[in-house]
Amino acid sequence: MSETCVLVLDAEPLPRLDRLRGRARVVHADEKSLAGHLPEADVLLVWDFLSAAVREAWPGEGPRPRWVHTPSAGVDRLLPELSASPDTVITNARGVFDQPIAEYVAGLVLAMAKDFPGSWELQRRRTWRHRETIRVGGTRALVVGSGPIGRTIGRTLMALGVTVDLVGRTARDTDPEFGRVHGNAALPTLLGEADWVVCVAPLTEESRGLFDAAAFSRMKPGARFINVGRGQHVVEDDLVEALRAERIAGAALDVFAQEPLADGSPLWDVPGLLISPHMSGDTLGWRDDLAEQFLDNFDRWEAGEPLLNVVDKGLGYVPST
Amino acid sequence: MSETCVLVLDAEPLPRLDRLRGRARVVHADEKSLAGHLPEADVLLVWDFLSAAVREAWPGEGPRPRWVHTPSAGVDRLLPELSASPDTVITNARGVFDQPIAEYVAGLVLAMAKDFPGSWELQRRRTWRHRETIRVGGTRALVVGSGPIGRTIGRTLMALGVTVDLVGRTARDTDPEFGRVHGNAALPTLLGEADWVVCVAPLTEESRGLFDAAAFSRMKPGARFINVGRGQHVVEDDLVEALRAERIAGAALDVFAQEPLADGSPLWDVPGLLISPHMSGDTLGWRDDLAEQFLDNFDRWEAGEPLLNVVDKGLGYVPST
Repeated sequence: MSETCVLVLDAEPLPRLDRLRGRARVVHADEKSLAGHLPEADVLLVWDFLSAAVREAWPGEGPRPRWVHTPSAGVDRLLPELSASPDTVITNARGVFDQPIAEYVAGLVLAMAKDFPGSWELQRRRTWRHRETIRVGGTRALVVGSGPIGRTIGRTLMALGVTVDLVGRTARDTDPEFGRVHGNAALPTLLGEADWVVCVAPLTEESRGLFDAAAFSRMKPGARFINVGRGQHVVEDDLVEALRAERIAGAALDVFAQEPLADGSPLWDVPGLLISPHMSGDTLGWRDDLAEQFLDNFDRWEAGEPLLNVVDKGLGYVPST
Repeated sequence: MSETCVLVLDAEPLPRLDRLRGRARVVHADEKSLAGHLPEADVLLVWDFLSAAVREAWPGEGPRPRWVHTPSAGVDRLLPELSASPDTVITNARGVFDQPIAEYVAGLVLAMAKDFPGSWELQRRRTWRHRETIRVGGTRALVVGSGPIGRTIGRTLMALGVTVDLVGRTARDTDPEFGRVHGNAALPTLLGEADWVVCVAPLTEESRGLFDAAAFSRMKPGARFINVGRGQHVVEDDLVEALRAERIAGAALDVFAQEPLADGSPLWDVPGLLISPHMSGDTLGWRDDLAEQFLDNFDRWEAGEPLLNVVDKGLGYVPST
């Protein structure tokens, strides 16, 4: 058996790579050299997981990697091109981001409820102005996306006394933690009941543009919207319009249709809109965790064992067992 | 029996007062007229609980209210003058603020961990800059103050995966929720172990100035300090110095030695210091809740039953049962 070739698409150095020493030939590629290297690679690690280069460079015919790993939760930057390669397995970073993103969303909920943005703006103006804030306990959240991240968000909000409705692909009447999981058909009704609407769905053809003018018009005037899914889940112009018309009370976006957000984007200064640069899951040491997760899966690959976190290319995510 | 006289020190209207109709004669006083009315009052409701007027107006001799209620958790604005009146009972707002303040503190912890202040400052500058943030689960918090608010803060942080050390007046080796409660003697050691130091103690002679240069020097360089107790717990100049010298990583103050904080205070723009205007417990409807709590206790007073939430004037707070 010839030595395994691991191709790494990396803009930044990958930690812990010494674990592959003597076990694989590691080839580094950038977006330009990727296409030339793909035919020789057994394994592709999309370390630069924000890149769209893999879809463009993916070979239509001939040899190609049998395993592609992306150290992200979403795999939308790999599909649908890779779906046409039935022998290629895709794995993702399922699990690594659950707790960090849940903390991030809980933090946004509390920050918006307690109007921290308002307090810190008043601080800049050296102005003391007491306001009454929202009690989070007893409010209601709708979490769209019932994978591990969505479930961890739901669990964290429940610990704060929030009633949580979870929406997923498959409705279930019995769920050990949430009582039930709603199907997509329940979304229009549930949108009208929530104080907090959180999008953490995988990006698929069904979920693209899910949060549009119709969705925002169903929400309560006091509702706040949080997107930690993908920018393409939101029709950004419709969100801007909903905020400017005060049809909803506020929103926080960590992801955008175009990243990085351009300096000239009108989103930066929409009233009631909080912006962060796609970092909700990225806690100190996250790159180490992601590298270890890939390398642990490489151990399995080398031993001929089934890989963990295998994406269902038809669904566009790792189905829950 | 003559009609009960309820004297209300109020700068703002008191809701729900119709519950006293036909049961008591209600007299309203401001800070100037308070002293003149105190001798005729059976009950004093310090609705304007931020006022220091009661201590100044309290009669040294002669008739005075037998019951004083403050709709706040702290009673430091009533002591020690009222301690010299053994026949006067003081009650407070124990319970009303527990959940709101716990949410506020959890929000501050998450906001500081995820650097929301940094993200929103970058948003103002239309700048996309990804950073790595702190995972809150697995960090360690020290909560100084083991009354109902401190316990609710501790419980809320534990739900986020934080290890919590609680410090109170009386050390206990067995506590159903926290395993143990540390005594004040453990404070110097515990200060060096915490990622988050939260002050929610009652203000007493022992706790005044507790957070001084020595305390900040014991904290870890990455530690962050939150004060939702009383401004006088903190030697503000020492905190400013600790922040400027980066001996600690950040702080959030909701209470101050002088309130409102003067426009010219140097605190407004200390790097790493977040300021809010004494509002951590004040959620929508809080005035209704506080009024109901007093009026429920008035029912007990009228019926000759023991009052709830009676302050131990020696300790300076309502002791836990």
